[in-house]
Amino acid sequence: MGRAQVLVVAGTHGNERNAPALLERWRSEPQALNRAGLPVQLVLGNPVALGANRRYIDRDLNRCFAPDLLANPALQQLEMQRARELLAEFAPTGPNPCAVAIDLHSTTSGMGNSLVVYGRRPADLALAAGIQGRLGLPIYLHEADAAQTGFLVERWPCGLVIEVGPVAQGLLSASILRQTQLALEAALAVLAEAASGVLRLPAGLQVYRHCGSVDLPRDGTGEAIACVHPALERQDWKPLRLGQPLFWNPALKGCPADWRFDPDALGFPAEAHWPVFINEAAYGEKGIAFSLCRRERWSSDAAWLQALQALTAA
Amino acid sequence: MGRAQVLVVAGTHGNERNAPALLERWRSEPQALNRAGLPVQLVLGNPVALGANRRYIDRDLNRCFAPDLLANPALQQLEMQRARELLAEFAPTGPNPCAVAIDLHSTTSGMGNSLVVYGRRPADLALAAGIQGRLGLPIYLHEADAAQTGFLVERWPCGLVIEVGPVAQGLLSASILRQTQLALEAALAVLAEAASGVLRLPAGLQVYRHCGSVDLPRDGTGEAIACVHPALERQDWKPLRLGQPLFWNPALKGCPADWRFDPDALGFPAEAHWPVFINEAAYGEKGIAFSLCRRERWSSDAAWLQALQALTAA
Repeated sequence: MGRAQVLVVAGTHGNERNAPALLERWRSEPQALNRAGLPVQLVLGNPVALGANRRYIDRDLNRCFAPDLLANPALQQLEMQRARELLAEFAPTGPNPCAVAIDLHSTTSGMGNSLVVYGRRPADLALAAGIQGRLGLPIYLHEADAAQTGFLVERWPCGLVIEVGPVAQGLLSASILRQTQLALEAALAVLAEAASGVLRLPAGLQVYRHCGSVDLPRDGTGEAIACVHPALERQDWKPLRLGQPLFWNPALKGCPADWRFDPDALGFPAEAHWPVFINEAAYGEKGIAFSLCRRERWSSDAAWLQALQALTAA
Repeated sequence: MGRAQVLVVAGTHGNERNAPALLERWRSEPQALNRAGLPVQLVLGNPVALGANRRYIDRDLNRCFAPDLLANPALQQLEMQRARELLAEFAPTGPNPCAVAIDLHSTTSGMGNSLVVYGRRPADLALAAGIQGRLGLPIYLHEADAAQTGFLVERWPCGLVIEVGPVAQGLLSASILRQTQLALEAALAVLAEAASGVLRLPAGLQVYRHCGSVDLPRDGTGEAIACVHPALERQDWKPLRLGQPLFWNPALKGCPADWRFDPDALGFPAEAHWPVFINEAAYGEKGIAFSLCRRERWSSDAAWLQALQALTAA
């Protein structure tokens, strides 16, 4: 039985330099990455942006993979072209077909070592559950967010993001390098077990389901007039308390009522009190100070495992 | 007796956004900054780079203030022009003369709240000693470094940098905002006391004297093959031990001998075992993984105080 190729992408954002440094190492010393016997394609997502040490040149590559954007011939920015290139080469129908895409990212927020899954594709959930069963990593389930679409991994039959932080942009960090490699090797081990039919999923999966995002308070010109409150810094994955201060302004004594946590006033369900991506530096331009999730426990579904086995053993 | 104007610069590097956010606030709510009665000019160093959220557009503005660069008419990059503009307006001979320049910076390294002084001008040492007497901030004395010259504050009769970290580039942080304001208000209080002749300096001053910088290990192509060792991260201002690992490579077991701290092998005196600016993201391109200092205690000199009084009361 064959084993489907796995696409591993580093440097989709050019100022997230830890995964590209690992990739360089894995290319020059192939034994430095435990591939669990799988055929792996190691690819730099945005080499031009990496060379410039910028997140992107023209637009965020990891928002370019929406079908309508890809199909629009008027869109010829560098990142749109790169998205089409990656698909032309590595899509399941391409000359170098991959069934699974793992996209390696870092963040300035205190996410630790974590997974991001887009939507509820059964094979993605199987892969995420398998990694969570090995390493206990938290899973951010991104869905139903019209403002943020077009993620790279969505264009492959199965895929997820490994997201590690905190680390400043442009900086190598030993702990970020270690955690990235640990999570990727766990992902490859799970995929190899799926391919050989021996994968067993844990009974359940804990997910943090995206409910929406909260922006910094801004003045009439759009300028931020506050930053994340010190008590909220590095508190990703920890529940917010009602009335907890969210923002802080250096000139204010105290915290105004509308800067305190009130999911109802924010238009969120009461259960949406798990923050993620707090203080991701690149999200300022997207109007995201943090996102809010509800935490849910799902039972594993036999269909997840079947879907992943079918893909990986193809 | 008049009081000389103080130039306060924020955003000399356009991706260090905390000081510019404070400056915006101090402009719209003047009472939010305690000026200690001094006339203060609040100026954005590099507004174009700030708009682009980049350290600089053409070249590092805070290396453009060397007299030979300023005088060279062939150098017309955006930052060279901006350096000349700032001097034309705010130099002691300009239409809006300032005697003292305080330049507000942030860093991705764990410097805490700190001061950087360039060389040994008596008035600078008086100002730094006065701030250290109030807040105990460590002082990095940058001198005798041919590779790093042309700092903004050197072109004013007195001046220093307030350097606060760690914070990722492009990110607002409450603790960074607070520390920046605290240090600036202390500086203004010291200057006001000097101007009115009531300043008394502490008996001595502790400085970390720059001895040189250490780069990451690199391969033949110039690519970094290691990052700062996890045990060295965030250890700014703390002494290195002989043989302590400095760098870490994700593929290596152990740490090679030439990646262990040995000041002699690095060409430094044995006393140069105090690291600063560890993992400043912007220094990768400058070939600086960290700098090494010797720590010294100097007695205050009456001439320092006289120099600062003469300048500030002018």
